[in-house]
Amino acid sequence: MQFELTKEYLDTLRDAVYRNDEPALLELVNDLHPADIAEVMDELGPDEALVLYKVMDADRASDVLMHLEEDSRENFLALLTPKEIAEQFIDHLDSDDAADMISELSDDQREQVIAQIEDRQQARDIVDLLHYEEETAGGLMAKELIKVDVNWTVSKAVKEMRKQAEQIEHVYTVYVVDENDLLLGRLQLKKMLLNPIRAKIADIYDPKIRSVQVDEDQVEVANIMEKYDLVALPVIDETGRLLGRITIDDVVDVIKEEAEKDYALASGISGNVESTDSIYVLTRARLPWLLIGLFGGILGARVIELYEGDLQLYPEMAFFIPLIAAMGGNVGVQSSAIIVQGLANNSMGLTGIWSKLKKEFSVALLNGAVCAVLIFTYNYFFNDSLALAYTVSLALFCVVLVAALFGTFVPLVLDKYEIDPALATGPFITTVNDVLGLFIYFLIGHLLYIS
Amino acid sequence: MQFELTKEYLDTLRDAVYRNDEPALLELVNDLHPADIAEVMDELGPDEALVLYKVMDADRASDVLMHLEEDSRENFLALLTPKEIAEQFIDHLDSDDAADMISELSDDQREQVIAQIEDRQQARDIVDLLHYEEETAGGLMAKELIKVDVNWTVSKAVKEMRKQAEQIEHVYTVYVVDENDLLLGRLQLKKMLLNPIRAKIADIYDPKIRSVQVDEDQVEVANIMEKYDLVALPVIDETGRLLGRITIDDVVDVIKEEAEKDYALASGISGNVESTDSIYVLTRARLPWLLIGLFGGILGARVIELYEGDLQLYPEMAFFIPLIAAMGGNVGVQSSAIIVQGLANNSMGLTGIWSKLKKEFSVALLNGAVCAVLIFTYNYFFNDSLALAYTVSLALFCVVLVAALFGTFVPLVLDKYEIDPALATGPFITTVNDVLGLFIYFLIGHLLYIS
Repeated sequence: MQFELTKEYLDTLRDAVYRNDEPALLELVNDLHPADIAEVMDELGPDEALVLYKVMDADRASDVLMHLEEDSRENFLALLTPKEIAEQFIDHLDSDDAADMISELSDDQREQVIAQIEDRQQARDIVDLLHYEEETAGGLMAKELIKVDVNWTVSKAVKEMRKQAEQIEHVYTVYVVDENDLLLGRLQLKKMLLNPIRAKIADIYDPKIRSVQVDEDQVEVANIMEKYDLVALPVIDETGRLLGRITIDDVVDVIKEEAEKDYALASGISGNVESTDSIYVLTRARLPWLLIGLFGGILGARVIELYEGDLQLYPEMAFFIPLIAAMGGNVGVQSSAIIVQGLANNSMGLTGIWSKLKKEFSVALLNGAVCAVLIFTYNYFFNDSLALAYTVSLALFCVVLVAALFGTFVPLVLDKYEIDPALATGPFITTVNDVLGLFIYFLIGHLLYIS
Repeated sequence: MQFELTKEYLDTLRDAVYRNDEPALLELVNDLHPADIAEVMDELGPDEALVLYKVMDADRASDVLMHLEEDSRENFLALLTPKEIAEQFIDHLDSDDAADMISELSDDQREQVIAQIEDRQQARDIVDLLHYEEETAGGLMAKELIKVDVNWTVSKAVKEMRKQAEQIEHVYTVYVVDENDLLLGRLQLKKMLLNPIRAKIADIYDPKIRSVQVDEDQVEVANIMEKYDLVALPVIDETGRLLGRITIDDVVDVIKEEAEKDYALASGISGNVESTDSIYVLTRARLPWLLIGLFGGILGARVIELYEGDLQLYPEMAFFIPLIAAMGGNVGVQSSAIIVQGLANNSMGLTGIWSKLKKEFSVALLNGAVCAVLIFTYNYFFNDSLALAYTVSLALFCVVLVAALFGTFVPLVLDKYEIDPALATGPFITTVNDVLGLFIYFLIGHLLYIS
């Protein structure tokens, strides 16, 4: 039932591609879902993909195209003329998918493709959609939806819906509008099943409906659909007119993207890169964060240099430099991660910055005390210098406290100024806490050894 | 339109709670969605919540209950008798929500509540659902669904669907079964709208339907629904009988949970904790990872101790300990994060471990070379010792390479042995790379300074 891409399958397919063996190719992909065929095509070169694509009918081929990875799609479309792209794909796609695809083209290509779209309504819808910012409700929505006039009867509504339904794959919600397209509510399919066909829509529709403005941020859209368990959400303009609808599958992508972005940032990777991206793309996403680390390392070197005299007298101070630095980094990342996730989920409750800091401080007191006692015990038994044992424990305790407060504070402040708090996690927090930790360690060491 | 919880609102509400002012309370929550009321109740104490809950009708109250945070719900239910829980909540919930709620109760309470459920069909459904593992398709599915017999006509189907629809909030898909409940396919609502009422279901249903086995892992369920853009997925037993259906809103929760778990692990936090959890819970989730860091720090100290003699002669070696350790950690986390995300998304392509390692090695060569040149330049101009400049650059270069390979290798191997690869990221990788890095640094230093 479930398709799994294997090397054997791919070899057989490639073979058929090179023989240009249409029946064999059809046989190989016939039972597959477009998403599966896309997975196969992602593994092929664009020329090979072209052969496979030519055996599919246009509806199927355009579905496959939408499931391709962005760079496979780009490479593949580069082989086609604007006329081919318009006729063979755009005319067969929902307006939102078509607009997404066209937005990936170069400005030049874009105009040419739009000019070639046969269905002029589709062309107008696409041009409309292209005007909206990508990461807003307008960028997510499709124009295709089913709507009925509040003044109709059930029987008239059913007739009209039949016409509209031919264009649409999934009927999630039937929207009720007035003669000016103002969104009034929704008509539950259940209600249509349960009422006589002469009933007036006005008497049976549900006026309670949640909608979003077309310029609403996509993350907010995702939060709303998730919180209220919605599968479709209508989009309206400033005057309340129904413009389109957003469906849950688009929002699932947004939710994943956001989670992945945060994860990547916490790991010191910017942008949405994948293991299959080019070496150049991977390096560009990672090097800047390493340079932050490098800069922090140089600062750290400067701090230690200040205490070179102490180090010459007590070289054992150097032993615990990595421990202090690592613990500061780890605690800071933990604290900031808790805050970043709380902010992302709107699960922070009503308490302010101070009560958050107080709580993190308590957790840090506990964690710091446990770690300090353990490291003291270790040094007491395995190291000769009691001064070192005191220094390391005390410094570790302080570093855990400072790192926790700093890790909590920074994302909260960033969020207050509407900067993505996830920027604070990962290498940035680690690096700052490294340097702070070294300062604390050597300062305490200096004071304790001298006395 | 969109509700926002403010301190003022909460104060007004609390006021009404203490005055036991029913009309005022009703007025305050009347226009709110159950999810919003739950957000309010999460902020109240259980006794206060009880007052608010008493003014709502049972359907609404049970919807609110399902949206509460788990610990608020637990505290709240502790105030009620099994009879109250059964009558006022369980009888009004969908079977999957009811089963989830009951599974949160103690064994004792569970039996008592089930005994008190008035609707015996609901009780049987719940008992059935409780048998399935929580993180499987069976644990996610609801028993409520709309199904029609393949031998019916459209008109008979509509009549039966009307009956079934009264029980069900959202009609996603109409399933077609045979007389033994074997899942045969689905009936598109569109097809019902477009066909005469005397048409046979057998002639118009769509036999192409994707389903999952009841014991399928929930992450796999989420992957399937996401990949194929499904809003509902039927669940079958080993013989192909239709048992229930999973809806996209449940799967959105799974997707979020998984992403959050990975993020938390990468940040050194185990389990799903939130900033609103107790200090004890937060500490328990974080301390183990700090202890790994502590242990790594002690190992690091041991490594440096081995080279105490070198350090006494060349204390400037100590300056760059934090830099080497930090860079090893950062590179390792980047590499493992790329792999962990690739594995989670099934976007690794067909290439094996060796080609992944080769690619990471290339990226590391590039990153390592840039960082090494930069740090050499810094040391050349700002430090007197040329030996130090060579040592730091060469060590940094090697550390970047080793950390990248190690960070790639570990999650791939864990995954191969079906251990969660996300365990490899965060403090574990950082700690191991710290220690490895120190070894490399001092070894190179020792060789370069001596010669």
